[in-house]
Amino acid sequence: MNRSVFFISDGTGITAETLGHSLLAQFGSLKFDQFTLPYIDSPERAHDAVRKINAVAAEDGVKPIIIDTIVDKNVRKIIANANGCMFDVFETFVGKLEEELGVKPNNTVGKHTVDTLAYKTRIDAVHFALDNDDGARTRQYDSADIILIGVSRSGKTPTCIYLAMQFGIRAANYPLTEDDLDGEHLPKSLKEHKSKLFGLMIDVDRLIAIRNERKANSRYASPQQCQQEIRAIEGIYIKEGVPFLNISEMSVEEIATRIIQETGLKRRIN
Amino acid sequence: MNRSVFFISDGTGITAETLGHSLLAQFGSLKFDQFTLPYIDSPERAHDAVRKINAVAAEDGVKPIIIDTIVDKNVRKIIANANGCMFDVFETFVGKLEEELGVKPNNTVGKHTVDTLAYKTRIDAVHFALDNDDGARTRQYDSADIILIGVSRSGKTPTCIYLAMQFGIRAANYPLTEDDLDGEHLPKSLKEHKSKLFGLMIDVDRLIAIRNERKANSRYASPQQCQQEIRAIEGIYIKEGVPFLNISEMSVEEIATRIIQETGLKRRIN
Repeated sequence: MNRSVFFISDGTGITAETLGHSLLAQFGSLKFDQFTLPYIDSPERAHDAVRKINAVAAEDGVKPIIIDTIVDKNVRKIIANANGCMFDVFETFVGKLEEELGVKPNNTVGKHTVDTLAYKTRIDAVHFALDNDDGARTRQYDSADIILIGVSRSGKTPTCIYLAMQFGIRAANYPLTEDDLDGEHLPKSLKEHKSKLFGLMIDVDRLIAIRNERKANSRYASPQQCQQEIRAIEGIYIKEGVPFLNISEMSVEEIATRIIQETGLKRRIN
Repeated sequence: MNRSVFFISDGTGITAETLGHSLLAQFGSLKFDQFTLPYIDSPERAHDAVRKINAVAAEDGVKPIIIDTIVDKNVRKIIANANGCMFDVFETFVGKLEEELGVKPNNTVGKHTVDTLAYKTRIDAVHFALDNDDGARTRQYDSADIILIGVSRSGKTPTCIYLAMQFGIRAANYPLTEDDLDGEHLPKSLKEHKSKLFGLMIDVDRLIAIRNERKANSRYASPQQCQQEIRAIEGIYIKEGVPFLNISEMSVEEIATRIIQETGLKRRIN
C-alpha cells in the first residue's frame, strides 16, 4: 500500500514539496501518494486541511506523513491536531535561527512583496532564452551569459529555460547541424563567442530513444545517424576546446547546476 | 554587516537553497551573503567546503549559517567541524521518518536514476509551451491542458513555462490584441476551447512600468493604452465567464500554483 504524504504551506507549497521530495527519495523502496495543500493561511483553511488529512488517514488505516512550512503558529497548531505524523519545518528551524541571528522572525507568509528587480531579471532571462532558442538568432549573443551547443534533442532548450527561470542567467542555444558536423567546425557566429560556448553530450542509446519518441523509425532517430552526430560533435568539442558535459543520466536541475559549477557562471538572482 | 549563509548539498543544492530562502525570508530585516556549494559528495570536497566556510568565518568575525542536505553521515560530520552554525536537514528529519516508515533510508545521493517518463513528460511540456507561446499556433489547443490569455506583458509566457517545468502541464498562451479588445470578444480559435481558458489580469501601474522597461515612452506603454486594454480585457473575462487572477503582486511560482488551485488542473509530474 502507498503511504500518503501531505505537503502543507501558507504559500505556494513549493518549499514543502521540494524538501519532502528529497526526504522521501531516501526511502526509494516505498511508494507515496502525494497531496499538496497550498495557501493554508487561516484557521478555516487549516480546519479544512485537517478534515482532508483525517479522511485519508481513515481510508488508509495509517497516519499520513505531514510536511509543513506554515509560518503562523496558530495555523500550525490546528494542523498538529490532525491524525498524521507531522514534520514541522519552521517549528524545527526558526527558533534556533532566531537565537543565532538575535532577531525576531517577521512571521509574514512567503515573500509578499515581489522583488521587482529580481522579477524583471528573471522574466528578461526567460524571454532571452525563448528569443535565442534553437539558433533562431545569433545577433544577441553579445549579451548572452552562455551559449549551449549540442546535437538536436540533447537537452539544450530546457536547460536554457531552467537557467533563466531559476538563476536569471541569459542562456542561448544553438544546434549543430549536419553541415557543421560534416565540416568538423564551429559556424562563424559561434566562433566569435567561443568563450561563452558550452557543449552538451549525450549517450547514443539515450539520443536514439529520445529521437524515436519524436519521429519514430526516421533517419533522424536511426542508430547510424545518432552515432555519427555524436562522434562528430565530440570531435569538434575536443578540437575547438569547448568544455562539455554528458547529460544522459541527469535531470534538468543537475545539468544546469553542473554547468554553473564547471564554468563559474554567475547567477543573476539568488 | 551581512550575515554569510552556506547552502551545502551532495546534489544540486536546490533543496537546501529553497528551504534556506524560506527560512531567511522570516528575517527580512537582515541581509545575507549567500554561497551555494553543490556536489559536496566526498570527504575531499567536504574538507574543501570547510576551508571555504572557515575563511568566510574568519573574514566576517561571525559564524556563517550552514544549511545542508547531505545524505552521507561521514561527509556531514566533516562539515559539522566547520566554524559555522549548522542546520542539518537530513540529520533532523530522516531519523524520525525512518522510525515512522519502518524502513531504512537508502543513503543514496539525490535521485541518481533519472525517472525517464517524468523527464519526457516535463521536456514535452516545455516544448509544448514554446511551440504554443504568444498565440504562435492554435492548432495544438486540443492537446493543451490550459490556455492562458491576457494583454501583452501580463506574465503569460513565464507562467506557461513554469507550469511545464515544475508540473509537466501543457500550457499554451494567447495575447488578446487590440482587435480582440476593441471588438469585446474572444477570437474564434479561443472560443472553441473556452473551458481551457484562464485570464491573467494586472494593475495598470504595474503594466505601464513593465511595458516602459521594454519600449520606453511608446504608445504601447502609455497610461491611456494600458488602461484601455485592461478595462477591455476585464470586460471580456466577465462577459465570457473566463476565470481570472490579478497577478500584479505575485511571483511566477505563485501565479502558477494559484492557477492550479483555482482550476483544479492536474499535475502531470510530482
